[in-house]
Amino acid sequence: MERIATGGVLSAAGFLVGSAACGIKSNEGSPDICLLMSIGPATAAGTFTTNRFAAAPVRWSRELLPAEDVRAVIVNAGNANAFTGDQGQADVRTEAALVAELIGCKPHQVCVASTGIIGHPLSMDKVANGVRCAHEALSDRPDAARAAELAIMTTDTHPKACAVHSLMGGMPFHVGGMAKGSGMIAPDMATMLAFVTTDAGVPKRLLGECLRQAVDLTFNRITVDGDTSTNDSVIVLANGSSGAMVTEDGSGLESFREALGAVLAELAYQIVSDGEGATRVIRVRVEGAATQADAETAARAVAESQLFKCAVAGSDPNWGRIICSLGYSGAEVCSQNTTVHIGRTCVVLNGTPTGASAADQMVESEVHVTIDLGLGQAHSTMLSCDLTEEYVRINAQYHT
Amino acid sequence: MERIATGGVLSAAGFLVGSAACGIKSNEGSPDICLLMSIGPATAAGTFTTNRFAAAPVRWSRELLPAEDVRAVIVNAGNANAFTGDQGQADVRTEAALVAELIGCKPHQVCVASTGIIGHPLSMDKVANGVRCAHEALSDRPDAARAAELAIMTTDTHPKACAVHSLMGGMPFHVGGMAKGSGMIAPDMATMLAFVTTDAGVPKRLLGECLRQAVDLTFNRITVDGDTSTNDSVIVLANGSSGAMVTEDGSGLESFREALGAVLAELAYQIVSDGEGATRVIRVRVEGAATQADAETAARAVAESQLFKCAVAGSDPNWGRIICSLGYSGAEVCSQNTTVHIGRTCVVLNGTPTGASAADQMVESEVHVTIDLGLGQAHSTMLSCDLTEEYVRINAQYHT
Repeated sequence: MERIATGGVLSAAGFLVGSAACGIKSNEGSPDICLLMSIGPATAAGTFTTNRFAAAPVRWSRELLPAEDVRAVIVNAGNANAFTGDQGQADVRTEAALVAELIGCKPHQVCVASTGIIGHPLSMDKVANGVRCAHEALSDRPDAARAAELAIMTTDTHPKACAVHSLMGGMPFHVGGMAKGSGMIAPDMATMLAFVTTDAGVPKRLLGECLRQAVDLTFNRITVDGDTSTNDSVIVLANGSSGAMVTEDGSGLESFREALGAVLAELAYQIVSDGEGATRVIRVRVEGAATQADAETAARAVAESQLFKCAVAGSDPNWGRIICSLGYSGAEVCSQNTTVHIGRTCVVLNGTPTGASAADQMVESEVHVTIDLGLGQAHSTMLSCDLTEEYVRINAQYHT
Repeated sequence: MERIATGGVLSAAGFLVGSAACGIKSNEGSPDICLLMSIGPATAAGTFTTNRFAAAPVRWSRELLPAEDVRAVIVNAGNANAFTGDQGQADVRTEAALVAELIGCKPHQVCVASTGIIGHPLSMDKVANGVRCAHEALSDRPDAARAAELAIMTTDTHPKACAVHSLMGGMPFHVGGMAKGSGMIAPDMATMLAFVTTDAGVPKRLLGECLRQAVDLTFNRITVDGDTSTNDSVIVLANGSSGAMVTEDGSGLESFREALGAVLAELAYQIVSDGEGATRVIRVRVEGAATQADAETAARAVAESQLFKCAVAGSDPNWGRIICSLGYSGAEVCSQNTTVHIGRTCVVLNGTPTGASAADQMVESEVHVTIDLGLGQAHSTMLSCDLTEEYVRINAQYHT
């Protein structure tokens, strides 16, 4: 498996993408809508937010995905079309029908995704115009992928994409993706959208399994602020254009799983490192937990601790805040068994503070916290970012 | 029942308090230790943190409280004596023994409480000197109460105290208290210390019941940052000096319960309104929930939403963030049944945005959010505060 520097969702053969500015975002002239399509039929799978007030596009895409193959995804940024009632659902149907008409498929072969403000109806004139412009812009050139990555951004400070090239039984294939997400990022899943393409052929059932596993190990292990959005969506399309095929009996599956996992991991990392106001990534690894659930609970508590995230912003190796969050996490812990490293420095050894300063470990762009609970074999990792004044500024100054 | 303006823990008869500066806090000369004692025997009760790494003083006080009556509480600020191993436990025993010797009781009649940095051993020379100075300063004058309120502060910006006067079967009695707490504040319980005195006589069992109920309705309903500390302690002493007595069969209990509840509610409010960096109190009331657990879960999710707390800091009536947190709270919700008010303005009526602006409701010092889930009869209220750049500054600049 090899990383490919450019191309994103267009690294895989047989896909086109186009984007446009249709005035949904408040800053006029910003690209805010994009259309991703597969030239031929594609199997598809998706994972979506667990928020009970899931947005209209999430409901639409969640419903259509088990049913049939998918030809396209239409995405807008600037308006979440969430908590918009029956009108919101009707708008999604209209949007999908318009795309279907333009590219020649059924509305139920068009996934829809949105991100932006909650509770405002979509301006369907703008959307219809945007869909047509994005359709006219469809292209397989790398700059079209970059334009799409920009169109789906909201408070993101930079576009997010990656791609890999790999082999399946000697046959080359590609997996590429783009994502957005910066705030309202929490596990299960982040306020994030991610769209992944592959020119491998993958049976729908196996594609769904692979996606769920990969999301669980990547997007479900990042947290920026613990707020799970109404609009989270990860959608993967597999069109088989490369001729590399995963078969129903699982041949080729491992190569595909590895490639998909690598792309999702990279996109998740790009999201958390672009967390609103973030200056550092925090990597929390818990080892030696009594159970897998304990490992995850403990890692999450440290990664989400507002106080520890502030300490990282201030470059302070305040391990007391790590210990405190382990203590309230609900995971089984025992002080005499607990060992904590910040970077390479051991700050607590079997329950005893070592007195070592980890100040020099706090200045890196990635701060590593490793906790050994000393109670078993289970382990888990969570990625987070520091909590800065800039995060508050962004989210206090954002006005509805 | 009547509020008393001054006096705090000395409003109740038969109590003395003294404080001193012994050099535990880093800013030299700041009072940092205080001794509260009952002149005669007192029944006592306490509630403590649920953090698994409970500090040494918490373990000590939790253990002694069921066993016998209590004569005194010794409190220091600046060092939490948490995660300090066997030495921490030994230091607590030494401290209690020293107090016991000075006032003439057994070590197990002395509660200990601490707040401050985690993981540093207490300097016992300083503590011993501090205990002696605080003992020499014991007094029943109101300025002694104010000095004690200052001594237990850490990042608090102002001292916290209140007292009430009430009647029990015609007999007057008093309940007074002081508290500290500003950051690491979460339900179950806040990083907070509170000490309450009463000159009513209350049987130990009933005192414990009343305290647990009152804490559940007050300190367990406030949140600043969701971080549950290692040191939370609420301790109440009842010495019967007033002659007003709650009897084992419960006569007088309602008067006492009401007075205790009022004092704890006021202290809880003072803590949340002094949340680190806070400029506004947020009062979230959820009504119409299907179950009590749903009401509490939903209220807590909104009150703890980092994004909504930032919106309040920016005076933005961003009800989308309220809806989003209701959606991920885990509580049973249904959009068509959901009605949301910000202050007196209805922003969502039965699932439909009203379009009304609640901007004028966001400038008050207290922002009221009322959510009717429209699914049942259960209700709950949580108090929180806004999340400001100042919170981050305080917690990033605090250095270990």
